[in-house]
Amino acid sequence: MPASAAASAREILTRLHDVMASRSPAQAKLNSVVNIIGETLDSEVCSIYLLREGVFELFATVGLAEEAVHVTKLAPGEGLVGTIAANVETLNLAEAASHPDFAYRPETGEERFHSFAGVPIIRRERAVGVLAVQHTEPRRYDDVEIEALQTVAMVLSELIANADLIDAAGPAAASRPQATGTARINGFKLVEGMGAGVAVFHQPRITVEHTVAEDTEAERHRVYAAFDKMREQIDRITSQAEFGVGGEHEEVIATYKMFAYDEGWSRRINEAIDSGLTAEAAIERVQQRTRMRMREISDPLLADRMHDLEDLSNRLLRIVSGQLGTAAQLGLRQDTILIARNLGPAELLEYDRRRLKGVVLEEGSLTAHVTIVARAMGVPVLGRVRDVRRLISEGDRLLLNASEDYCVIRPTADLEEAFDAKLLYSQRRRAAFAALRSEPPVTRDGDRITLLVNAGLRDDAAALDLTGADGIGLFRTEFQFLVSSTLPSRERQQRLYREVLDVAGDRPVVFRTVDIGGDKALPYLATGDHEEENPAMGWRALRLALTREGLMKAQARALIEAAAGRTLRVMFPMVSEPWEFEQARELFERQRDWVASRGRKLPLEILYGAMLEVPALAETLDLLFPRLDFLSIGTNDLTQFLFAADRAHPQLALRYDWLSPAILRFLRRVVRATRDAGVPVTVCGEMGGRSLEAMALLGLGIDRLSITPAAVGPIKAMIHSLDRAAITATMERLLAAPPPDMRAALTAWATDNGVELA
Amino acid sequence: MPASAAASAREILTRLHDVMASRSPAQAKLNSVVNIIGETLDSEVCSIYLLREGVFELFATVGLAEEAVHVTKLAPGEGLVGTIAANVETLNLAEAASHPDFAYRPETGEERFHSFAGVPIIRRERAVGVLAVQHTEPRRYDDVEIEALQTVAMVLSELIANADLIDAAGPAAASRPQATGTARINGFKLVEGMGAGVAVFHQPRITVEHTVAEDTEAERHRVYAAFDKMREQIDRITSQAEFGVGGEHEEVIATYKMFAYDEGWSRRINEAIDSGLTAEAAIERVQQRTRMRMREISDPLLADRMHDLEDLSNRLLRIVSGQLGTAAQLGLRQDTILIARNLGPAELLEYDRRRLKGVVLEEGSLTAHVTIVARAMGVPVLGRVRDVRRLISEGDRLLLNASEDYCVIRPTADLEEAFDAKLLYSQRRRAAFAALRSEPPVTRDGDRITLLVNAGLRDDAAALDLTGADGIGLFRTEFQFLVSSTLPSRERQQRLYREVLDVAGDRPVVFRTVDIGGDKALPYLATGDHEEENPAMGWRALRLALTREGLMKAQARALIEAAAGRTLRVMFPMVSEPWEFEQARELFERQRDWVASRGRKLPLEILYGAMLEVPALAETLDLLFPRLDFLSIGTNDLTQFLFAADRAHPQLALRYDWLSPAILRFLRRVVRATRDAGVPVTVCGEMGGRSLEAMALLGLGIDRLSITPAAVGPIKAMIHSLDRAAITATMERLLAAPPPDMRAALTAWATDNGVELA
Repeated sequence: MPASAAASAREILTRLHDVMASRSPAQAKLNSVVNIIGETLDSEVCSIYLLREGVFELFATVGLAEEAVHVTKLAPGEGLVGTIAANVETLNLAEAASHPDFAYRPETGEERFHSFAGVPIIRRERAVGVLAVQHTEPRRYDDVEIEALQTVAMVLSELIANADLIDAAGPAAASRPQATGTARINGFKLVEGMGAGVAVFHQPRITVEHTVAEDTEAERHRVYAAFDKMREQIDRITSQAEFGVGGEHEEVIATYKMFAYDEGWSRRINEAIDSGLTAEAAIERVQQRTRMRMREISDPLLADRMHDLEDLSNRLLRIVSGQLGTAAQLGLRQDTILIARNLGPAELLEYDRRRLKGVVLEEGSLTAHVTIVARAMGVPVLGRVRDVRRLISEGDRLLLNASEDYCVIRPTADLEEAFDAKLLYSQRRRAAFAALRSEPPVTRDGDRITLLVNAGLRDDAAALDLTGADGIGLFRTEFQFLVSSTLPSRERQQRLYREVLDVAGDRPVVFRTVDIGGDKALPYLATGDHEEENPAMGWRALRLALTREGLMKAQARALIEAAAGRTLRVMFPMVSEPWEFEQARELFERQRDWVASRGRKLPLEILYGAMLEVPALAETLDLLFPRLDFLSIGTNDLTQFLFAADRAHPQLALRYDWLSPAILRFLRRVVRATRDAGVPVTVCGEMGGRSLEAMALLGLGIDRLSITPAAVGPIKAMIHSLDRAAITATMERLLAAPPPDMRAALTAWATDNGVELA
Repeated sequence: MPASAAASAREILTRLHDVMASRSPAQAKLNSVVNIIGETLDSEVCSIYLLREGVFELFATVGLAEEAVHVTKLAPGEGLVGTIAANVETLNLAEAASHPDFAYRPETGEERFHSFAGVPIIRRERAVGVLAVQHTEPRRYDDVEIEALQTVAMVLSELIANADLIDAAGPAAASRPQATGTARINGFKLVEGMGAGVAVFHQPRITVEHTVAEDTEAERHRVYAAFDKMREQIDRITSQAEFGVGGEHEEVIATYKMFAYDEGWSRRINEAIDSGLTAEAAIERVQQRTRMRMREISDPLLADRMHDLEDLSNRLLRIVSGQLGTAAQLGLRQDTILIARNLGPAELLEYDRRRLKGVVLEEGSLTAHVTIVARAMGVPVLGRVRDVRRLISEGDRLLLNASEDYCVIRPTADLEEAFDAKLLYSQRRRAAFAALRSEPPVTRDGDRITLLVNAGLRDDAAALDLTGADGIGLFRTEFQFLVSSTLPSRERQQRLYREVLDVAGDRPVVFRTVDIGGDKALPYLATGDHEEENPAMGWRALRLALTREGLMKAQARALIEAAAGRTLRVMFPMVSEPWEFEQARELFERQRDWVASRGRKLPLEILYGAMLEVPALAETLDLLFPRLDFLSIGTNDLTQFLFAADRAHPQLALRYDWLSPAILRFLRRVVRATRDAGVPVTVCGEMGGRSLEAMALLGLGIDRLSITPAAVGPIKAMIHSLDRAAITATMERLLAAPPPDMRAALTAWATDNGVELA
């Protein structure tokens, strides 16, 4: 703002401050306000319209007819005032009547005024009123005048809120009629499930309460200190291992950083302070201006940057106002659906698990750490919801159905009822499955199938007792790494492994060594400066572990010491060629020797397994078998490589079916090879947790499934209803001459043969 | 710059302008300059040091002893002056003597001065002198003074250059001793090959020639117009199909856009103009300041943004100075190595192919369009060379060895000689291979192998005659799409296909339908708003084509009409399941019927082929064969999916070998299946173009190879020296019990059996 604008704004603000501090009634205050503004800006008309009962009512004016006050009313979108309010946008017109939205109101006597400028009075990002000036002479107002009006509007919003002049029921809702109704937003399922609760923002938005500064110098210092603190924060995020916080992408952080150090931004805030605003109001004021400027440019690429600047501006506001915590620190008081742009895994873990019924993210991806952790916690997550923070208000009632990619905002009673029924049904089914807990998974013709669970968090071990599973078929050790802000020490690793083994007791636990790198990068672990174009096919899992031996040695020792006196089962991920397995196994043997040399107690035995998820390994199993104790097929990764189809890709996820002949034949080949070699094989991927797919796997000769705990009940029910010999013969027949739709054929067979499919 | 600083800078500049315009000798001018600066900045000492014979010599002073002029000399890095020059950095010291680099020179009498401020005089980004002020009283100079000094230094650089006061041999080189010597820079091989030439910058850097404005108002208008034009350019790049230009990533463009519309940047340039600079000098001045500021922050994330701003600043300079063309428009005058941050494929094609001996890029990736096109053109490309534009100067002699990932700058005679010898050797070998042109590729035991070439550009068809190949085994139709700025019309497609068929004559040409999407996205073709995390496994090739039928229909019709009266061979890329092939084939049949219904001439026959590059397809070949005329194995993509290892990943590229048992066994299985079904199979990937790998393929039963034209000679030589029966038996034996190092075993066998390996 040029110096003169700052001066005139400051003059107005000083006078407004006195009005606001006075004890006169609200109406009298408004009358004073229009007089002050009219005088200072040398304006023939100055009027204030405020939202009451859903319409914008003329509350005070100088220049228009007195009789029009509390008489002239405009609905949102009606006339210039209604348009300004509806669009939350400034209008600046040399000839008001020529604007398409102009609505003439004879009672005001405004026909002799040609020029018109109006700015919205904003509260919580929505218009609660309009401040307008008019002139007889047709002219556009200059930037300095508009600036001053906007600054004044900001102060008015405080006055109005304090005086309870606007709809008490919640001005925010009323100003946007659609915001009161039910709405449905669509997203992308990141973690399946349903949940209902009130919207809670992970980072609460700050509402500016005091706009006019008592002491400009003090405000300047507050902003100065806040900038320092914010830059410190951003620098820490960038440089240090501040992981699990924010979950921001590198690119976003770069933009944060650029803005944080941008001279222009801090200067504009300082200028706004010069005009008499408080630090908070100045930050908000600059943000409002930027929003408007950017809206004019309108460009999809810039929209992302604007998002970043909004976030940063909000961060600065939170620092300056001392409201630093996330919603987790404030504690959840009822069933909650958490709203965020993005989250780190550690941030998610801070929330009270019992009250957190779901998460809605603006960004997010299937392979993000937060998604992996939420899946393990069983919290439904809907991602990639555009504009979520604009569409949802804090406290809105939400029905989240991540399984079907949507969320309902402010549902009607009907919708609530239907949702409850659906939720109840799935809870009942869950209860029925839970009743099967102590029954062994045996097919109708007497084959005992081994049902194991996948786990990764400490609490997951409890799933063994809850489901009656035979053991943990896949313990994902990388979870501990994903949720830590620093590399977990050997001691911490060992403690976790021992606790899991203790809970498992006699039941086997298969520990998979860390699968990190690629799409699961850890900031505290440099994985090379090469930006991977296809991270799923990148430098990850065993590839990374073998080149960073220190990491794997620590884990090996932690596992060996944790399993002292018991059987240790270790499995290596992403084995592509036999030599990789051999090298990893040797590393473990050396660590075992080291532990032995210290006279410490060793495991009774160490069994070594490999994950088959890279297709090439299937070609050289004969070379691997002599050294292998067990094999696990990771169907998630395997199928994406077999089909060269990213499973995180929403279109491709549906294109190729787990029940395609290609996958089933590939698996049959592997099963036959393992059988000939006498090596036990387990399927541990999502595929095994689905009833129809599991049925097909049993038909291929798979006897061991490691699945998500929630699937144990349904899969057990399927097994109880299945004739193993019949499905085996059927699979042989179907794979010899595959039908056009294998899924349909298998579903029909299951129905005809009374197989229970969940 | 605050108002007062602008005023004092303007005052100095006005006076300097008069000095510069006068006809006095250079030394007199310098004497005037130090007087003016000393007076205006109220400085006790003002001195100018200039680079002469590699050292910084005191040329003029007010305040220091007269006797020291042309006597005091400091080497780069020596004393405060040498340090300022070496680091191209301002020093501002309250107590000069306490700085670790301080070097006392008694002849100057400077012991009574405590404070010291010096700024580099910069020309072509290197220091050619130092401007220094000193005071008795110990104090730091304020920002306004430093600003003024820097602005003056900029003007001095013009005066000095015009007066030939500095080393004529090239001040740039001399100021950085290391820059004169030989240097070797490392990068990442994007396209193999060697080449020598002079460095030419794709976007020439502008050297600011006039610094002091005659008419400030006029300069302001020039900058204003340039900003408008630049924003227009950027907007066009963003919104329109300005493809093939710039090759910039979306992220970079977003940053361009943000800077282009940044108020702060244009304001700072305007302020610099207010201080009396020309538009060019003002842009450069602001850029210098930004560089220094950013250097203080020092952050890897910001470095990228700084790069963007540098580029944009250079763009603005080029617009304002009217020097708009790229080096291509100026024409290459000698053998050239092109230097760029990045390039679009169309930009590369603009260069004279005979003089373009190589490209060095700061960015670039194996899958970028420019890389694909350069590979087809046979131009070696070295990518990911950090800081290339700082390390290399326009006109530097360069020896590029992309095959070995490096480039030598300013080579010594020895290095030139060694390089020439290497180049000559490979040229001789090439001549020897060319002599084989008319000899058929027959093995020692009489097997006729079919050798085809891969092509994609119109000119590639000429390779048929040059190499004596049997036909084009893979014509990549997407090349025409990659190098176009808009979707090529059906007519343009048809013309290209007909020309290629004409050149080929009786020899077969296999047209592969477009493989775009994923990592080969076209800006004029929306492929969904989903940002792909693993583009190689994304929505590409046939997947995309089948959902965007219009595109494929146009291509089908263009191919069918182009092949009127001849045999048309069509091949579909990325077939994953038989139904995809079936659907593509049906689409072609419908187009054939449509052409027939119009009474137009049809191809004699249409043969349909599929690429086998998705591993899953190998499992269902039996279902595909009845409808398939031929199969082509795309080993590049196939092997990356088999090993789940991105081939664009520098570390992974070396990890898994094409001669691994897994790949060879997989291929053997496919070959056997095709043989049983009587379907011809070709290998068309890089693998077939390497002698040892091709030998192994022949041993697996492959009779047809489609390879890069340059490989035809070496492969033919290998075939001539090979006993087919022997390699067949050897492959059987080696694959039954693979040795630990298959490559070593095969190399040994080839040596023992006199197989000629290139």
